[in-house]
Amino acid sequence: MADIALIGLAVMGQNLVLNMNDHGFVVCVYNRTVSKVDDFLANEAKGTKVIGAHSLQEMVSTLKKPRRIILLVKAGSAVDDFINKLAPLLETGDIIIDGGNSEYRDTTRRCKELQAKGILFVGSGVSGGEEGARYGPSLMPGGAKEAWPHIKTIFQSIAAKVGSGEPCCDWVGEEGAGHFVKMVHNGIEYGDMQLICEAYHLMKDVVGMEHDEMAKVFQEWNKTELDSFLIEITANILKFKDSDGKYLLPKIRDSAGQKGTGKWTAISALEYGVPVTLIGEAVFARCLSSLKDERVQASKVLAGPKATQFSGNKAAFLEDIRKVSPAAALWGTGGAALGLFFVRTGACLQHWALSCAVTFIPGLFLPSVFLGKIKDAFDQNPELQNLLLDDFFKRAVENCQDSWRRVISTGVQIGIPMPCFTTALSFYDGYRHETLPANLIQAQRDYFGAHTYELLSKPGTFIHTNWTGHGGNVSSSAYNV
Amino acid sequence: MADIALIGLAVMGQNLVLNMNDHGFVVCVYNRTVSKVDDFLANEAKGTKVIGAHSLQEMVSTLKKPRRIILLVKAGSAVDDFINKLAPLLETGDIIIDGGNSEYRDTTRRCKELQAKGILFVGSGVSGGEEGARYGPSLMPGGAKEAWPHIKTIFQSIAAKVGSGEPCCDWVGEEGAGHFVKMVHNGIEYGDMQLICEAYHLMKDVVGMEHDEMAKVFQEWNKTELDSFLIEITANILKFKDSDGKYLLPKIRDSAGQKGTGKWTAISALEYGVPVTLIGEAVFARCLSSLKDERVQASKVLAGPKATQFSGNKAAFLEDIRKVSPAAALWGTGGAALGLFFVRTGACLQHWALSCAVTFIPGLFLPSVFLGKIKDAFDQNPELQNLLLDDFFKRAVENCQDSWRRVISTGVQIGIPMPCFTTALSFYDGYRHETLPANLIQAQRDYFGAHTYELLSKPGTFIHTNWTGHGGNVSSSAYNV
Repeated sequence: MADIALIGLAVMGQNLVLNMNDHGFVVCVYNRTVSKVDDFLANEAKGTKVIGAHSLQEMVSTLKKPRRIILLVKAGSAVDDFINKLAPLLETGDIIIDGGNSEYRDTTRRCKELQAKGILFVGSGVSGGEEGARYGPSLMPGGAKEAWPHIKTIFQSIAAKVGSGEPCCDWVGEEGAGHFVKMVHNGIEYGDMQLICEAYHLMKDVVGMEHDEMAKVFQEWNKTELDSFLIEITANILKFKDSDGKYLLPKIRDSAGQKGTGKWTAISALEYGVPVTLIGEAVFARCLSSLKDERVQASKVLAGPKATQFSGNKAAFLEDIRKVSPAAALWGTGGAALGLFFVRTGACLQHWALSCAVTFIPGLFLPSVFLGKIKDAFDQNPELQNLLLDDFFKRAVENCQDSWRRVISTGVQIGIPMPCFTTALSFYDGYRHETLPANLIQAQRDYFGAHTYELLSKPGTFIHTNWTGHGGNVSSSAYNV
Repeated sequence: MADIALIGLAVMGQNLVLNMNDHGFVVCVYNRTVSKVDDFLANEAKGTKVIGAHSLQEMVSTLKKPRRIILLVKAGSAVDDFINKLAPLLETGDIIIDGGNSEYRDTTRRCKELQAKGILFVGSGVSGGEEGARYGPSLMPGGAKEAWPHIKTIFQSIAAKVGSGEPCCDWVGEEGAGHFVKMVHNGIEYGDMQLICEAYHLMKDVVGMEHDEMAKVFQEWNKTELDSFLIEITANILKFKDSDGKYLLPKIRDSAGQKGTGKWTAISALEYGVPVTLIGEAVFARCLSSLKDERVQASKVLAGPKATQFSGNKAAFLEDIRKVSPAAALWGTGGAALGLFFVRTGACLQHWALSCAVTFIPGLFLPSVFLGKIKDAFDQNPELQNLLLDDFFKRAVENCQDSWRRVISTGVQIGIPMPCFTTALSFYDGYRHETLPANLIQAQRDYFGAHTYELLSKPGTFIHTNWTGHGGNVSSSAYNV
């Protein structure tokens, strides 16, 4: 009998199955195109304890109870299709786990629909990509809480481990909480990736480094507090040569694709009114990159600054870039701080309990030492509003802020686009300002639209001023007809 | 008999009624709280030709045919309520015009629902605020095209006029096109307002100017090519004194409100994949400002740069700011260029004809001379992808780019948050770069998720590389189960 079933034998599915098998679990697999089951058993799963099913009924019949079924299929209608086919085959207390990149609102809906049938639904974020799925993903399960005791052992066995052996997996909360956290995680990842790109761009075009030099630098950085999966793979990518002996990276078209989770995070940020600027800019940077043909045209027509040569000390500038790069501080501000802030806000707004958020933030994409520090920060102060206010992160940002300002000033003079480096600094400088010029916005809104404003001395009381002497006394709060 | 009816006697409604009356049209008014009809007739509308109705039936009975009824009520269910009450009282060919800030998708829905009943629905953006509504708004009507000949005369009579007497009003397109354009217009307005705030912040905290000095500067700017409504009202706001003789602006709480249209624009930008970064940052800047209490706390804890004194030439820096401020160039890049690009994209994506977009972009918020130039640009080249590529705007940006880079470098060194100045420059520098570092994003995505990439030499062909030597050959395009 199988401990668990998995439907969906693409990249992620195959790797999760093999991971579970490595940890001693008997997995039954199924795929809509059934021949893939046989291919998998004959190849990647040869010699393992994985068993195959050629129908959903067969798959269901192999499972111990309560039955546990993981779906790793394309987000959207495919998930609903499988749920609709499985539900009649299952019993009260059986568990369906959606491990795909589903939208959290769909997960919430599915949770409720299945609850009415007595079936427990879990929406779990899975991160760490191909490699993570195979050897240790970060898992973010949420949904029907009664399911947790039945999947905790498997999930925590196969999850990545940090420092002290703690698994990157814990129960997130109810309804779509797991997919919400995964969405935010992906958004943070967009931010980190864009920051690394901006660092790469500065190294290449300002410091004038070759690919092998840049690879060495990233490898060195990987031995510092920047040690992380993204930094490591960037070093590997920079070193990688094509079959003709030339570096592959410069041959790749600079038009970035996206599957949507970064976009959803930015949209959620706008809907909740949380200023997650880093993720917004990172998504838009991919959009701008995908206007490749326009940029080629524009490059023939639009001029940059006259001075494009860097005349300062290159080693010092490189150290400035290192200090400023993702994990050093920007992540702490524009990325994860806001992300966590946002996750907490999302959690509160959605009434979800957020128990151990920090273990979901992918240990694989952020420096492992930082992961432990995030956990410490929230352990010390569960009401922490923003990581920036925790001592460790506060000092990390302060220690690099001179570098940060230098990197931006230099890049701006030379004409290097740095949407994420700059927006993260704007957020830091904006957040630490007691007074922002938004009083002028309030005055303008009241002037042309009678939208009213508050006085600093009387927050909560809204006032309209007749600025021109010939406007009306009607404020727009009277707009409710 | 009345030429037209208007329901909704808040700020905008009253002013539009009086505007129509000024132009010789007989208006019948109605309001859900009926006493407001009598108040209006006894006060603001005293001595005019405005007639009142105390029921919808009465209102409908006063109208010439085809009947024309403008709704100026709160966006959302109030609009649907009135439509549902009016429809049974009307005949085929009668016209309902929604002049509120409705979401364009709702307008599209209402258009279709009323079309089935033979009633013509028009969703019109109305801009220019209180003052504009009273003396000359920008109007952006779209929806059932058969309605246009019956409302064109009234609309173009009351609309603002530019330069040669041309009205800021023309038919936009089908379904929700009018409200879509209004939404984008509002988004651009958020961007312009934020840019003005950043200029104000720099003047106040870097140049160290007093309010009366700043007012004079804005008044001077209003005589240059920056001449626009927003610049003019900013000068008036800076000069305005409270009853105690002190300037009012510094007393106003720096926590900006919003009614949603900027947010919707940014969300639409994300959904369509159009990098309208300026509007995203402007919306987020308002969100950050509304975290006032947190910022007060953060200001006690987080440090800025050590050097916060400006040691350069103040007059020169002020001129730099002037050159860089909204209309000078940033608007041409981050704001309207993207906005129009976006509107065109939105129009194409929604299959709407966008005939004379430039007359909808509010002449009241952008320098009037620029308005004419936008029209010229599109007249010369209707396929213009981006205003930046038109000669006039290209030169405008190039002439100020040194100033722009100086303003940002200076502000960044001193610690002034400039989310919009910086993102607009990032967009300009990104757009004009033939090569962006997004090839690294594609490589990383393929490395950890097998998402595939294109080669520069073979766009359109997607390739997966086995970067690690132990990953699989399965690309994520095989993810479709």
